[in-house]
Amino acid sequence: MKYRVDVHIDGDVRTVIADNGANLLDILKGMGISLYTPCGGRGTCGKCVVRAEGGMAEPSENERRLLGERLKKGFRLACSYRIGSDACIYIDRPGEQAVIMTAGTRRQVALDPLVRKRYIELPLPSLEDQRPDMERVLALSGLPAMNAGTSITNLPGIETELELLKGLPALLRSSGYRVTTVETGGKLLSVEAGDTTALLCGTAFDIGTTTVAAYLHDLNSGKLLSVASMMNPQRKFGSDVISRIDHAKTSRQAAYELKSLITDCVNELAGQLADDAGINKKDIYAAVFSGNTTMLHLLAGLDASGIAVSPFIPATCRTIRLGAKELGIDINNSGQAILLPCVSAYIGADTVSAVLASGIYEKDGFSLLVDIGTNGEIVLGGKDGLIACSAAAGPAFEGANIRFGMGGIAGAVDSFAMHGFRYTVIGNMAARGICGSGIVDAAAALLDAGVIDETGTVADDGETAGLPQEIRERFTVTDGMRSFILVPAEETDIGEPITITQKDIREIQNAKAAIAAGIETLMSEAGISYHDIKKVYLAGGFGSSIHVRSAARIGLLPQQLTDRVEAVGNASGSGASECLLSKEMLRIAEEIAGKVRYIELSASAVFSEKYIENMIFTQNQGEVLQMEKRVFPVAERIVNG
Amino acid sequence: MKYRVDVHIDGDVRTVIADNGANLLDILKGMGISLYTPCGGRGTCGKCVVRAEGGMAEPSENERRLLGERLKKGFRLACSYRIGSDACIYIDRPGEQAVIMTAGTRRQVALDPLVRKRYIELPLPSLEDQRPDMERVLALSGLPAMNAGTSITNLPGIETELELLKGLPALLRSSGYRVTTVETGGKLLSVEAGDTTALLCGTAFDIGTTTVAAYLHDLNSGKLLSVASMMNPQRKFGSDVISRIDHAKTSRQAAYELKSLITDCVNELAGQLADDAGINKKDIYAAVFSGNTTMLHLLAGLDASGIAVSPFIPATCRTIRLGAKELGIDINNSGQAILLPCVSAYIGADTVSAVLASGIYEKDGFSLLVDIGTNGEIVLGGKDGLIACSAAAGPAFEGANIRFGMGGIAGAVDSFAMHGFRYTVIGNMAARGICGSGIVDAAAALLDAGVIDETGTVADDGETAGLPQEIRERFTVTDGMRSFILVPAEETDIGEPITITQKDIREIQNAKAAIAAGIETLMSEAGISYHDIKKVYLAGGFGSSIHVRSAARIGLLPQQLTDRVEAVGNASGSGASECLLSKEMLRIAEEIAGKVRYIELSASAVFSEKYIENMIFTQNQGEVLQMEKRVFPVAERIVNG
Repeated sequence: MKYRVDVHIDGDVRTVIADNGANLLDILKGMGISLYTPCGGRGTCGKCVVRAEGGMAEPSENERRLLGERLKKGFRLACSYRIGSDACIYIDRPGEQAVIMTAGTRRQVALDPLVRKRYIELPLPSLEDQRPDMERVLALSGLPAMNAGTSITNLPGIETELELLKGLPALLRSSGYRVTTVETGGKLLSVEAGDTTALLCGTAFDIGTTTVAAYLHDLNSGKLLSVASMMNPQRKFGSDVISRIDHAKTSRQAAYELKSLITDCVNELAGQLADDAGINKKDIYAAVFSGNTTMLHLLAGLDASGIAVSPFIPATCRTIRLGAKELGIDINNSGQAILLPCVSAYIGADTVSAVLASGIYEKDGFSLLVDIGTNGEIVLGGKDGLIACSAAAGPAFEGANIRFGMGGIAGAVDSFAMHGFRYTVIGNMAARGICGSGIVDAAAALLDAGVIDETGTVADDGETAGLPQEIRERFTVTDGMRSFILVPAEETDIGEPITITQKDIREIQNAKAAIAAGIETLMSEAGISYHDIKKVYLAGGFGSSIHVRSAARIGLLPQQLTDRVEAVGNASGSGASECLLSKEMLRIAEEIAGKVRYIELSASAVFSEKYIENMIFTQNQGEVLQMEKRVFPVAERIVNG
Repeated sequence: MKYRVDVHIDGDVRTVIADNGANLLDILKGMGISLYTPCGGRGTCGKCVVRAEGGMAEPSENERRLLGERLKKGFRLACSYRIGSDACIYIDRPGEQAVIMTAGTRRQVALDPLVRKRYIELPLPSLEDQRPDMERVLALSGLPAMNAGTSITNLPGIETELELLKGLPALLRSSGYRVTTVETGGKLLSVEAGDTTALLCGTAFDIGTTTVAAYLHDLNSGKLLSVASMMNPQRKFGSDVISRIDHAKTSRQAAYELKSLITDCVNELAGQLADDAGINKKDIYAAVFSGNTTMLHLLAGLDASGIAVSPFIPATCRTIRLGAKELGIDINNSGQAILLPCVSAYIGADTVSAVLASGIYEKDGFSLLVDIGTNGEIVLGGKDGLIACSAAAGPAFEGANIRFGMGGIAGAVDSFAMHGFRYTVIGNMAARGICGSGIVDAAAALLDAGVIDETGTVADDGETAGLPQEIRERFTVTDGMRSFILVPAEETDIGEPITITQKDIREIQNAKAAIAAGIETLMSEAGISYHDIKKVYLAGGFGSSIHVRSAARIGLLPQQLTDRVEAVGNASGSGASECLLSKEMLRIAEEIAGKVRYIELSASAVFSEKYIENMIFTQNQGEVLQMEKRVFPVAERIVNG
């Protein structure tokens, strides 16, 4: 039995013939339409909502639980919906790219780009000057002198090198021996006919688990020409790195699919960057990639399975340099790709890059760098040494596992205050859900108002008596759980109120406890107290959008440090740009990756203890850390590390 | 109109349907049957002889001229034969591989092979030891310490390197962390499960224009395990490098075909070597290639067109190192290929390799190295410096352009003496033609007997009066030219006598004059006379098979040096083996390539003068070189060179 399915999306209708019983999410995937499925299509996150018309299959248990009243309006979960008749499916994807954090702290770095060009006019060959074509070029290229006897092809990206040699004789003759050399790090990448020195661009990418940001620079001036971003298309296989790795493990085909998704995404972004800047993609000669260890493994096609299971072993943490072509990246044929170095399975190049861009590696005393995502990466230290850990916060702050949670995209409540129940929505529209910064604000407001107590328990009817009437009226029940209405149904876009449930509060407690305990574990390792920390850098989109007071109120960040917090935006992207624009910065990034000492929290008794301590919503006054202050014996640790 | 053609070859019959007028050489090519066509199928060399039965097309002018009486017996030239009826074609290819020179001088070199293995048992990963898989391996690999921050993939043959990284996690886990590392020059090539250290072989190839020789060594012991050789299959596009380059220039397809032919040949030889030694091809981890500059360009797929025309510019002369895979060579997946360095368009890696194997680069005073082929490569010098030239001798000594000439294969007359008209035939069979050493013997004998005079003119009837009767009876006419019968028709396999014609003598004069003039030009450049030369090394198959007395008699080699001549066999192959077995020898080869100063003869007035002087058959007594003896200012020349 076959049915006709009309899919309405982006103002378009596309028709497909489907088998009876076919899964709608699979059908859409087959049409190249990917929905956001943080749970990987297991029917638990409730994010893959579509609206269906036509003879409907009976709703599943998951749909009843997660959609409630919305079922009546025809809303269904694509992952749970099976075709049982002809149907019309309406997919409403809001403008997802609206608020991906691409801006980041920008330092001045001395321009010494990864790739350089030089125009040269070669002497013509003659019986008196029979140098081989390659020698003729090398002699005037300004490259470090090479002895005639040394091999020509022990360069990174040999493929490119051999291609260069193959094309060189014809190129020299057709160009009248007037050519432009392209070199990286003293190695010849390619030779182009005529003077092309003006055309020299490079890209930096920050590949996050959720979002991908991309930057195009003119390498002659260092100028930022354009910025672009996209959701990471791999997210249809789950919102966290473990889901991705698990999927990659299922088959060679699946691993290839993950690699293709991110490669295609990078290529699309490169195309957008070029279009926006009015250049040709082929004028891009370098792509520097930052990202967490898993994302870079998947990009390189490396086996990431060791990252997913204890003891958490990546294939490599070193810089990977290769021809962009080998990576499937469609820029100049001789273009170089550099995947920045990582520290460990859960301290990736994104953290190394943020350490670089924040400059903490060259600062006296102790700075704290925190990047809160599914994992909270935390770095403590300065020019005398750096230690780092990764706290498994879970995806609560990214909106997953939160009843009405969503990413920081259009329709998300991104701030909330109890006074007047004021809130703001990204994109100035009716609310569809709530994102990380809104969740933190809400939790802080509920705490302040006494809607939840220090243990995180939502006040029961007996306890709400002392609360103002307008607050009391907002208590309700969602999915059978006591909850609090943040946005009433009539103000939302989803036909029901946006609430925060008891379960949501528990998720927030787990998440904030992990981050706070991670910070304290590093401080304990370093033997310092809060007043030793000169500055706190918050990296990433979430770090830039949260309200520091709210974060401190719920104990996500230490209360004692609120006067020293600075948001550095997408520092991972900024660091990648720095490495593109300055070989010295790339060298420093490698130095940072080599010297950061990684503290494994899953093996840390200190962390376990502090995690439990931080489950409650005290306003931490630093009293749990009154231990003896020691000098931070960094050098010694690094030698041992 | 279509015709049936039955091709009888190697005891087999294969049938093909051909268009009316189709060229037989093309038909055979399409069937994968390649005939020896030094002229490239232009109908001038007369080597592509087949026997045809069936309604025959009219013989061409070329066939009449070159086949003479043989036409009556059904012999035809495949290149000139066009299908005009059903036909049976008989192809008789003698055992071509019988006498390819593979043996060469073998020095003792300290074993330090290009590729090494090491078996290691790695500590298992744990929460206390979370090193990435690659670091775990590198730490015990014995490779030079790499700083953790440095990039992992800036190695030659990056493809291999990325593949290694891709497979490493699964390999370590499945092998229980007991693995064998494979490294070259301090770089990790691959990691294998378990202890595979016993399986470690390498190959050396000498790719000649005419023949390809291959050697298999055990890299643990250095032992030579097997030797194999084949005719270079590219020779169907012509016997000399210019014909090959001209063909490669015709189209991208043609260039690819030339590359494929030699790659397939190398792969077939590698398979033979492995079979003979009872090893697996995958146990071969390195392939070192010697050969002339053109052959190495074609092997690497480089554009060789600059080599064919003045001012004779190759794409590169440097060592080319790459993954064997990239070259299309089917050995171990991580196997390395090294194409040895060249000096110039016409002084190739074969000469560099011969200089290495002969050891002249480390000898006091002056040695002379001569490798006579289509070009005669000549090197003069010693540890204080080396100069080289390439004299365009033409293919006479390889049997081409000689009426009954052929390569040094079964059926070739390879020695001749006037006394009793004794001769020897390779393979002890009825003679089919005459090869280089036989031609030199014959010319010397004719000179001694007065059959030809000092100007190379065959005695006319008036001049033969004083000759013995049995010699007088051997004068005849071939193709309208006065000629001398070396082997009477009744003793040959071709139904007619093997003669040496007036034109053959002219070819020999040209060839020997070029070699002798090349030697004298270098001596003049060095400012030395014959008694300064301590030793003459004759490299190559022809150099090993010629009779020194005959060579000196015709002036191919200086009479004054006959007491100092040593044949070093396939010194090019020996040198390649040395580079495979010793990284130090490879380094020295690169040093030699970098310091040999090339003298371009086409620009040399000295050469022109000496070439004309040497056209006559005097027994050179050195009197033309009575110039002032100077000290050889080598160091200065190298700096300038």
